[in-house]
Order: sequence, then structure tokens, then C-alpha cells
Amino acid sequence: MNKKITVIKGDGIGPEIVTEAIKVLDAVAEKFGHSFEYTDILMGGCSIDACGVPLTDEAVATAKAADAVLLGAIGGNTSTSPWYKLAPNLRPEAGLLKIRKELGLFANLRPANLYDELKFACPLRSDIIEGGFDMMIMRELTGGLYFGARKTEVVDGVETAVDTLSYNEDEIRRIAIKGFDIAMKRRKKVTSVDKANVLDSSRLWRKVVNEVAKDYPEVELEHMLVDNCAMQLVRDPKQFDVILTENMFGDILSDEAAMVSGSLGMLASASLNDTKFGLYEPSHGSAPDIAGQDKANPLATILSASMMLRYSFDMDKEADAIDNAVKQVLAEGYRTGDIMSEGMKQVGCKEMGSLVAERV
Amino acid sequence: MNKKITVIKGDGIGPEIVTEAIKVLDAVAEKFGHSFEYTDILMGGCSIDACGVPLTDEAVATAKAADAVLLGAIGGNTSTSPWYKLAPNLRPEAGLLKIRKELGLFANLRPANLYDELKFACPLRSDIIEGGFDMMIMRELTGGLYFGARKTEVVDGVETAVDTLSYNEDEIRRIAIKGFDIAMKRRKKVTSVDKANVLDSSRLWRKVVNEVAKDYPEVELEHMLVDNCAMQLVRDPKQFDVILTENMFGDILSDEAAMVSGSLGMLASASLNDTKFGLYEPSHGSAPDIAGQDKANPLATILSASMMLRYSFDMDKEADAIDNAVKQVLAEGYRTGDIMSEGMKQVGCKEMGSLVAERV
Ligand SMILES: CC(C)[C@H](C(=O)O)[C@@H](O)C(=O)O
Ligand SMILES: CC(C)[C@H](C(=O)O)[C@@H](O)C(=O)O
Repeated sequence: MNKKITVIKGDGIGPEIVTEAIKVLDAVAEKFGHSFEYTDILMGGCSIDACGVPLTDEAVATAKAADAVLLGAIGGNTSTSPWYKLAPNLRPEAGLLKIRKELGLFANLRPANLYDELKFACPLRSDIIEGGFDMMIMRELTGGLYFGARKTEVVDGVETAVDTLSYNEDEIRRIAIKGFDIAMKRRKKVTSVDKANVLDSSRLWRKVVNEVAKDYPEVELEHMLVDNCAMQLVRDPKQFDVILTENMFGDILSDEAAMVSGSLGMLASASLNDTKFGLYEPSHGSAPDIAGQDKANPLATILSASMMLRYSFDMDKEADAIDNAVKQVLAEGYRTGDIMSEGMKQVGCKEMGSLVAERV
Repeated sequence: MNKKITVIKGDGIGPEIVTEAIKVLDAVAEKFGHSFEYTDILMGGCSIDACGVPLTDEAVATAKAADAVLLGAIGGNTSTSPWYKLAPNLRPEAGLLKIRKELGLFANLRPANLYDELKFACPLRSDIIEGGFDMMIMRELTGGLYFGARKTEVVDGVETAVDTLSYNEDEIRRIAIKGFDIAMKRRKKVTSVDKANVLDSSRLWRKVVNEVAKDYPEVELEHMLVDNCAMQLVRDPKQFDVILTENMFGDILSDEAAMVSGSLGMLASASLNDTKFGLYEPSHGSAPDIAGQDKANPLATILSASMMLRYSFDMDKEADAIDNAVKQVLAEGYRTGDIMSEGMKQVGCKEMGSLVAERV
């Protein structure tokens, strides 16, 4: 197969980790007889520097014409970088919000699981994580507080800021369907998270999720309040299969779950629209402090490329080949600095990429 | 001193745990020569059953006339209790939101700390919690999404729900001042948590917090994004002294922090207005499943009574007497079921209350 991939290297460690993911994709292409065509676009700080905005409309058009987008990471140090002196809608993150909205990427999948080899890095007590855990957070990505109307104005001499949290039933239904669909391929349990004891949007969320659930009689559905979910992720992460939630709650809970797994440098993510198209990126940030030093862990980006093959290109065998190569490299004891432990072999970003590529 | 205390026993285990807290308060009164006058009001499910609403205006008036309010817990099982078939504004939790708003209780203090004796219950790895941790979450309690306008309506044939997140500079300033004031009495560090890369309300929050910080040159201020904070609470809870945040983020993060401490049954909370008046309650819920079985842990409520003495009545010696009595009881090995461990002596709710009262 021939696939067009738009590549966003981004800022910080972005370029290094994306380079390694492409190395691995090239190995896949060779082995399985595919051809991947890469086109770079700018987004984030590098785009601000080159074009004055964090994402140009031409870049969006390029991305739209591709079969999928592979993203490294964007943004810089928020206290020291001049990018954060700009108006909010001109900062690096605005590029990310714009591409999500313009490409209609409403479904954000963030797996959080424990890698057997990296158990020692999990911050939880060993008896809690005995047997591991494996959850998928399905976060709504183009609605809610992120894209509602906002304004800051002076009311009776007092500065007042307002953000709007809005959801309609269609927005909730399409993400709920994605959540149940993926649960059917997993352990058939959906935990829908909301704050229905306070918010109207959560009460509508719960109602629509209950309706969608009727079409999935095999899937067990439970509703959980967001404050309770923040507790349960720490108390007993094993209980979760698919967590289905709105944009802001998903932002908070997916990061908490990622930290609970202790393997932030390993966690991939996919942002999908209602076709096969998707944007794939690691769950971690741009780590400007270690950029350009060959220290970054490319595995989350490599695993994001694997998700791209699986979800956007229907290349399951090829994705398995990457996932297995990553497992093998870990089993052989290779580690980047962030996941290093005693007795293991420490390697840099480039070597890690080559090790995985060789084993594909 | 003579003090008037409004007592809200509430639902579930509420009555049992409040009874024990009053036992301890009576012991304090006797020892230190005070007199506490208690007046019961109804709130939550019991008020719905008796009066048709979760909190009557007369009950609010009674509370307003007191020097402080002591609350057990409210609410029932959300799936099985008939209270949750009512309209949202008639459910038990609406009583809680109403009393917060009517009494102007904008500052919610939730300590989360590790009790040496209960370390084994902390879900984090022992090396992470080495040396313990001790943070205070200062949550804004009468603004934001909890009290903004909301509506559910059909727009172009599609059901749409909207909640509003609004803050003005005065609301932010008064809670920030409370946060810095309490930091001055502690380790002089404030972590202000927001989502300033997305929300206008968070950008205003950050601006006003920075202004307030100028009056507290001794206090170190850092800003943290809410998703990062959800991670840091699990990765390294020791780094925090005072966490200052808005209503919804505070709801999520304070519950996460409570679970991280592993001692939910021990955690007190205070909700204050800008006088000495406050409402004091345990951080845990009404646990309807164990209600009336003498199994509940009354220590969080007893420690909430201690906070009441300290914050509302300026009775520091008396509060210390309670805190020390609780520590002594734990050191002597007495435990309720929720914090029981091998070799300890298990006691019921009543006995736990008596043990603390005797040691005051
Ligand atoms: C950078 C930021 C706007 C973004 C978000 O909040 O969605 C990030 O935290 C994420 O989760 O992808
Ligand atoms: C019961 C609920 C409305 C309440 C809240 O969200 O504030 C509770 O979770 C709390 O934290 O006191």
C-alpha cells in the first residue's frame, strides 16, 4: 500500500523522536512492501518563528490531504520562552487546538498500561499493580470548555472572565459510539466519567451514553463522578477498561493515568475523526530541557506510529511487528535515561530507534 | 467561652460520626471550661424526606445564627435511592451547594497528609512517601462551573447543554489571600493550579494570584497546569505545601490527594467565609452501605471539630488536645475497620469516639 503521512516534528525533542519513528516506519515499509510518503509541516513554536502563527492554513490543507498525521511534540518553557509572551491564540498550543478542530479530531485515545519490564517505575505499591493494568481513555477532543465561547470583560468595574462548557447530543453520541466500539475489541467495560451531580452538560452526557449503551448489550457500563475517578485511578487502576469522558476531565484523568502507569515515555495517543484519518502523537510533552541531546525516549512516538498503522491504515500485522519489536528491545534490557534502572543498558534516542527498527 | 454550633447529622453514617465528634467536643468543653450549645438542622436526604427539599430557608437561618456548623455527610446510593429520581435542584447534594452559597463559604480547606501510623494504607511506593507529606488544598467553593448559569435546550432539533465557568477578580483575590495567609503559617509555598493555556478564567486567575503574591514576598509562588498537577500528586506529593485552585479543579485534585494519602477516613475539611464563621465536615462521603452498623470511622469528623475550634473559635490549645488525643489513640493501636491492619485492635465507631474523648 501507498500512504501519505503528514509529519509535524514540532519543538523541543519533537524532531529527534519523530526521526526515530520514521526510521521504524521505513523498516515496516521495506519488510511488508508498503510505501510511505512523508510531507513535513510546521506547527507550534517553530511555526511561530517561521510564519508568525502557530499553524498556517496551508499547513492544515497539507494535513487534510494526507492519510494520517504523525506529531512529535510542541511548545517550549512557559516561563522563559518568548512564545508565551504572545496573545493566547498565537501561542504554540493554539496550533494544536486549531489542528484538532480543523481536522475534526473529536476522539482522543490514550492507552495507559503497565509494561512488565517497567513496573519498578510505577509509583503505586506493588500489591496494587500485581498482574498489571491496561486501560484506554477515550477523551472527547473538540468540544466542551476547550472550544466554547470565552470572554474577559469589565463588569461594574470588576474584571470578569467567562468560559463556556457546551455539549450537544450529537457530539456526545459520536464519542460514546467510539468508546463502546473500542470496548467491544477489549474487555467490554465502559466507565463513563462526568460530574452529573452538578453540571447540565454531564447530565446530558449521561443520558446520551445510556442511550448508546442500548446498542451494545455485551458491554458493561458504569457511571463514575470525576472526583471519584481521580481517586479510583490511584486506588485500583485494574478496575478500568475503557474510560469515556469529556474534554477537560479527559485531559486531567489521562495525565493522571499516564503517571500512575509510571511509563509516560512509553505512552502513545491517537486523535481520530469519523473516517479512518487520525493524528498520532506521544502523550508526553516537548521536554525543551533535554532537546537536541539524544536523550529523549522515542518509544511513545514509535508506538504512536504503530497506532497509526493499526487505526488509520488497517495494518494490524505491521503494527504488531512494531509493538513486538518494542517489547523485545525492552526485554533485551535496552533503556533510555528516563526508564533506566540498575543492570540495564542505557542507550540514546537514535540507538533506541535503530534497535527497534532492526527488530521489526 | 460559650459557642453556638449548628449540627447537621445528615444521611448514611452522618449521625453516628457526628455523635462521636460531639462526645469529643463535650470532653473539650468540660476540660477547658467552655460551653457548646448544639442545634440540629436537617440537610440532604433526611430533609427531602421530612420537608420535601434538601435544605429549608429556616435551616439556613439557624445555621447563620450560629458560630459554626458541624456536618456529618449527606446523600445516598445514587443508583438505588429515590432521592436521585428527583430534579437535580431537589437532590441531597443541592442542599450542600445551597448552604455553601447562602453562607458565603468561599474558602474550602482540605488537608491531605500522611499519618505515620497509617503509612501502610498509602497506595504509593514507600520510597516516594519516605518522610511523609503534608499539603493543604485551598479550593474556591462558591464560584466557577458550580454556580454559573446553566441550561439545557433544543437547538436546531439537537439537545444542547451549557454550563458556565465564570470568575471575577474579586472572587479570585479573596481566595488567593486566604491561600497565601495559610501558607504563611505553614511552609510558605503556594502552588496555584489552573489551565491558563486554554481558559480565560484561568488566565485571569493567574494574573490576580500574581498580584496578591506581591504582598507576600516571603511566600514562594509557582503556577502549575491542572493536568500536570494531577500527575505530580502521584509522582511526588512531598513537593506541595498549599495548592490554591478554583472550584472544579479543587474538587478533583483534593479527592485525588486524599486517596494518595491513603487515609480518607482521617481527613477533615473546613469551608470558611470572610469572618470567623465556618462549616466543618469530613472529606469522605455518607457511606450508606455501612450506615447504622457502628463500623464508620469518626476520626475525620472529630478532626473537623478540631479545625472548628482552631479556625472559628481561636481555641488552639483545645484543638491541639483533640489532635493529640487522636494521635495517641492511633499510637495505642486502636483502629476502625477501614484503617485496620495486622496486630492492631479493631474498634467500632462509638468506642473510637470514647477513646478519643477520654484522652482529651
Ligand atoms: C497543550 C494542551 C492544550 C493540551 C490539552 O490540554 O489538550 C495537552 O495538555 C494535551 O492533553 O494534549
Ligand atoms: C457532593 C458534591 C456536589 C461535592 C462537590 O463536588 O463539591 C463533593 O464532591 C465535595 O467535594 O464536597
